[in-house]
Amino acid sequence: MKAFQFVEWQQPGQLRDVPVPEPGPGEVLVKVGGAGACHSDLHLLEAPAGSRSFSLPFTLGHENAGWVEKMGPGATGFAPGDPVIVYGPWGCGLCMNCRKGMENYCETPGKPSPGGLGGTDGGMAEYLLVPATRYLIPLGDLDPREAAPLSDAGLTSYHAVKRSVHLLGPGSTAVVIGAGGLGQMAIQVLNALSGATTVVAVDTSEDKLKIAKTMGADEVLISGDDAVTRIKDITKGQGAELVLDLVGVNPTLTMAAQVARVLGHLTIVGVGNASLPVNFSSPPHECAVASPFWGTIPELIEVISLAQTGKIRMLVEHFALDDAAHAYHLLHDGKIQGRAVITPND
Amino acid sequence: MKAFQFVEWQQPGQLRDVPVPEPGPGEVLVKVGGAGACHSDLHLLEAPAGSRSFSLPFTLGHENAGWVEKMGPGATGFAPGDPVIVYGPWGCGLCMNCRKGMENYCETPGKPSPGGLGGTDGGMAEYLLVPATRYLIPLGDLDPREAAPLSDAGLTSYHAVKRSVHLLGPGSTAVVIGAGGLGQMAIQVLNALSGATTVVAVDTSEDKLKIAKTMGADEVLISGDDAVTRIKDITKGQGAELVLDLVGVNPTLTMAAQVARVLGHLTIVGVGNASLPVNFSSPPHECAVASPFWGTIPELIEVISLAQTGKIRMLVEHFALDDAAHAYHLLHDGKIQGRAVITPND
Amino acid sequence: MKAFQFVEWQQPGQLRDVPVPEPGPGEVLVKVGGAGACHSDLHLLEAPAGSRSFSLPFTLGHENAGWVEKMGPGATGFAPGDPVIVYGPWGCGLCMNCRKGMENYCETPGKPSPGGLGGTDGGMAEYLLVPATRYLIPLGDLDPREAAPLSDAGLTSYHAVKRSVHLLGPGSTAVVIGAGGLGQMAIQVLNALSGATTVVAVDTSEDKLKIAKTMGADEVLISGDDAVTRIKDITKGQGAELVLDLVGVNPTLTMAAQVARVLGHLTIVGVGNASLPVNFSSPPHECAVASPFWGTIPELIEVISLAQTGKIRMLVEHFALDDAAHAYHLLHDGKIQGRAVITPND
Amino acid sequence: MKAFQFVEWQQPGQLRDVPVPEPGPGEVLVKVGGAGACHSDLHLLEAPAGSRSFSLPFTLGHENAGWVEKMGPGATGFAPGDPVIVYGPWGCGLCMNCRKGMENYCETPGKPSPGGLGGTDGGMAEYLLVPATRYLIPLGDLDPREAAPLSDAGLTSYHAVKRSVHLLGPGSTAVVIGAGGLGQMAIQVLNALSGATTVVAVDTSEDKLKIAKTMGADEVLISGDDAVTRIKDITKGQGAELVLDLVGVNPTLTMAAQVARVLGHLTIVGVGNASLPVNFSSPPHECAVASPFWGTIPELIEVISLAQTGKIRMLVEHFALDDAAHAYHLLHDGKIQGRAVITPND
Repeated sequence: MKAFQFVEWQQPGQLRDVPVPEPGPGEVLVKVGGAGACHSDLHLLEAPAGSRSFSLPFTLGHENAGWVEKMGPGATGFAPGDPVIVYGPWGCGLCMNCRKGMENYCETPGKPSPGGLGGTDGGMAEYLLVPATRYLIPLGDLDPREAAPLSDAGLTSYHAVKRSVHLLGPGSTAVVIGAGGLGQMAIQVLNALSGATTVVAVDTSEDKLKIAKTMGADEVLISGDDAVTRIKDITKGQGAELVLDLVGVNPTLTMAAQVARVLGHLTIVGVGNASLPVNFSSPPHECAVASPFWGTIPELIEVISLAQTGKIRMLVEHFALDDAAHAYHLLHDGKIQGRAVITPND
Repeated sequence: MKAFQFVEWQQPGQLRDVPVPEPGPGEVLVKVGGAGACHSDLHLLEAPAGSRSFSLPFTLGHENAGWVEKMGPGATGFAPGDPVIVYGPWGCGLCMNCRKGMENYCETPGKPSPGGLGGTDGGMAEYLLVPATRYLIPLGDLDPREAAPLSDAGLTSYHAVKRSVHLLGPGSTAVVIGAGGLGQMAIQVLNALSGATTVVAVDTSEDKLKIAKTMGADEVLISGDDAVTRIKDITKGQGAELVLDLVGVNPTLTMAAQVARVLGHLTIVGVGNASLPVNFSSPPHECAVASPFWGTIPELIEVISLAQTGKIRMLVEHFALDDAAHAYHLLHDGKIQGRAVITPND
Repeated sequence: MKAFQFVEWQQPGQLRDVPVPEPGPGEVLVKVGGAGACHSDLHLLEAPAGSRSFSLPFTLGHENAGWVEKMGPGATGFAPGDPVIVYGPWGCGLCMNCRKGMENYCETPGKPSPGGLGGTDGGMAEYLLVPATRYLIPLGDLDPREAAPLSDAGLTSYHAVKRSVHLLGPGSTAVVIGAGGLGQMAIQVLNALSGATTVVAVDTSEDKLKIAKTMGADEVLISGDDAVTRIKDITKGQGAELVLDLVGVNPTLTMAAQVARVLGHLTIVGVGNASLPVNFSSPPHECAVASPFWGTIPELIEVISLAQTGKIRMLVEHFALDDAAHAYHLLHDGKIQGRAVITPND
Repeated sequence: MKAFQFVEWQQPGQLRDVPVPEPGPGEVLVKVGGAGACHSDLHLLEAPAGSRSFSLPFTLGHENAGWVEKMGPGATGFAPGDPVIVYGPWGCGLCMNCRKGMENYCETPGKPSPGGLGGTDGGMAEYLLVPATRYLIPLGDLDPREAAPLSDAGLTSYHAVKRSVHLLGPGSTAVVIGAGGLGQMAIQVLNALSGATTVVAVDTSEDKLKIAKTMGADEVLISGDDAVTRIKDITKGQGAELVLDLVGVNPTLTMAAQVARVLGHLTIVGVGNASLPVNFSSPPHECAVASPFWGTIPELIEVISLAQTGKIRMLVEHFALDDAAHAYHLLHDGKIQGRAVITPND
């Protein structure tokens, strides 16, 4: 079959011919409907040799959905043809976190995950080998080609919001800094999980803020001092219960600390390479600063449930497997609206 | 001033002339905008002598809102003219529950509360004496005559929902049994606190179910075996995460146990005098059965916030103080849509 | 190999020769160290034909520990010789509850569990076939013959306490009704999870209360009105934050409702066939009445951790596989102190 | 009466004669048993003029206990002679946080608090004027001269631990960096709130670690790389669920980030003027970094409950009011073991 692979450090990915994998005991072969192209892949492709422990080549794609093709011996609970989404971070299954479905926080070092995040073969190929049925969530009526990005962009936003939802009752405010793909999803999740909180989106781009508005932001603000003043005003001087920084550069982190609230959450999702200094004086007292990673299996079930009822949706642009390199080019140049999804079987 | 009082056991209330109270240290005199007439008052007026420890007469009305008229010595934080709603259950202020704002669960026995629930003078008079500023919540732009029922009917529903909101994520179901005033409020609160849960209303009256639909119920069902079947169907056989019984008679409690779910909440708010038997076999395992009472001061702040943003509203019918007896007649005969509110200063 | 089986309805179990199972894909063969004999087995053996859906015969024993003997194809994470305890309630692994490690609340009906609770072959045999590695918890230095009852008697008590531990801070009280095996474990768990709560044990037997005292009960009380008075006294009239009824008959449930507290937990673990009526007046407001079942996989890891650090221990009496019938006789006659454990490989 | 006051910037406090205050409506006059001398007072006394908004002079002492002397008009719930501890951070009483008893996080700016933290008259005088009964907690049999430091040193440690106690189950580890007065209290609180967690104390001083051991630390470690290695070892490479930094300088914060765990809490209590940089890579994912301030009124009730049952105790050194300046000298020179308490009425 054809697979789009990471073959050489600091080189673009390449389309290659590889054998179709055969599922062993407990494993499942999935016919790929869609495999999302993620910014983190770009970082990887540009990384110097040796900066990661991966051995090359391997197939890219950690954001996958498709249809069950073949169940390995002993694998049960799914049947060929079932549409499924594939949970991305694969853990040991036996540590405390894995046993709660939190394989994103597996305690056993060195477990492989598919695509650019873990270094085993991912979904940018006709077929994907999944090591256990516990990584599969039924999609029901959702189209795998549309749903694929829910497994990362969707789940990451969902997790970052859900852990703070107890703060988001009547009178509360949530600020989303960065209104790109993750931000648009976060805005929708905020509205889906709390009908009461006021959602404020902040970005440097008027265009993205327009989309944010259509996604359900109650207020949209261009980044800057005026935005800080306005958020203080909305929150009667107290700041926001939740501040989600989806960018993570110095100006966004500084703003985040300024508009966060005593006892609030300041959550850093963006991998912008800057740091937020925390001490007794800033951010406000008992505001919890944390940087979560991806989400859990039970949460992915909830994400799919939200998508099935139409409460969240992702803007998706489709590309044939032959055009995967081109898709990454467009992504690199900021020319993808929403999420680029490779569809190897179209 | 005129006051509508409970004067004699098993007799209707009477309009009488009483002195305007003078606020002592820390107390506040409130000019009453609205005082709700509640079904629990009817139970009281019909009760035999000696069935409660109240000494007669006292002014009825435990659901009150109005404007600050006069601050007693040392009372601060409000000014004459401020529109306020009055928290109803008055506690000792010094036990653990009171110190958390949960005066509905004051641990000190025998603390007086206004109107028919506690036996001190309530709000069906031109003025109401409030013992401390901590019972006042600013109303902002809300009209006290409209807002008064939020302090009991609103707060009771809100509290009963809020304690279960962590169960009401994507894919969950909440069943409201009884679509009268409390039920209509519960439906609105469910939508305000969780954007994701499916809200099912059940009642014996098609008319009430029509209102429930306009209040935001996703599905409405006439009571009976078909309703049980349908709820099992919606919930894939598992039952609902939250079942709120706002009636509390044998058929509703039986239904509640049938449609509740493992690890769910079955919450009895209706004072229908029946009991739900709980054992190892029913309701489902670890479904928590509880009967809450009213709500807390912080929750009343949240209720007012929801009303200010238009997310909840109460159907209200106004009556002059002179017509209070008539209002109770209509209430007794089931002829009040929503809530009857006495407006002593109109 | 020899196996102690349930062969005929309303007849004692029988020792029979059966083949040693061969582990298929993902399965594990465990050499049994200890298999606990549980009261629930007695109920089963005495049940009329057709009262359960089990097909006979099957091997008894749902409370098992031992050593890994052989890993089936594709099973990883353990090696032959590893001492393990076996989680008892086996679920589908794919529903929401199973994915959180809560297989005791699997949503898929009809999943088999080992021994008398589920009707597939249990641990009263030389070898036990376990369908997945996720049911195995490493025992470290603990002896499987001592540890086996931790998987049911230990886990059930642990789960019943842990869900209420947020109520058990300074100044709180926990009442354990029934000081037999489960009660003794509950007392130890209460001390292990909260250093602050006052633990009160209630029983009809002075002897059991003596053991309860050595297990860490702060106060022990003979059942009756004096016990109710004393608990009210200890709790300044408020009642206890947690009341655990490990018996479940009418007198214990009545007492439980009398000594429970507003906002507390009243937890029914005993399968005594009586019911507690819940309504607006009793038990106290917002006291949550629930009947949990067994515990979760992550909780079993915590139980093992407590046993490894010596914070809980179980009184155990060992019997050879040949004496299994005798052990059940003693159990039936109330002559087992602690827990009877069959040791098929001694 | 005599009072030890802050009179001039960058000068030591002075003993002066001031009138005994008269309690107004709702206020209470307390005869001071003990007033703790706190490091934060030293920072204040050494601060340049204008660095705070306080107007001088005022009486020092924000950590107070004593006996009710006189109730102002309308004040109820206490009687002259009652031993009480005084909650320190005084708020508006009407914002959301104050209404939950969290006046340490009052949302209204500029509310005065007693002594060096708020600039109104504190407890280093024969009498202290308390503005409301809600700031008084009954002490029962505790001696106010011993109990005074529980209101700050005790409550601050308690709050910092309690917010993380859900993380501290079986198998967990809590690291306390800094084994001085706050650290010793934190160790005791950890043992009082969780019987299961492993408590590790880290300090540069062998002497303090000896005391930490007697206070209940399971393991004590001299600061340095070996301590990091040992904590990683104890926690099987995962790090500790709770890391409390009671120092807050660069080496302690760096260590804190090294030994914290995915999903843990890293809590900065020490006012050491350094900052911890937080980003996607450090501390571990979803470890929540926060800097709490003091504690709540309900928590102070719990602290007193722990002290009454002997589960926590504070080392205290008493000084007459005439020796207050001397006490601060000793404190400045690091010569106070535990806490210096001024006893104005001895």
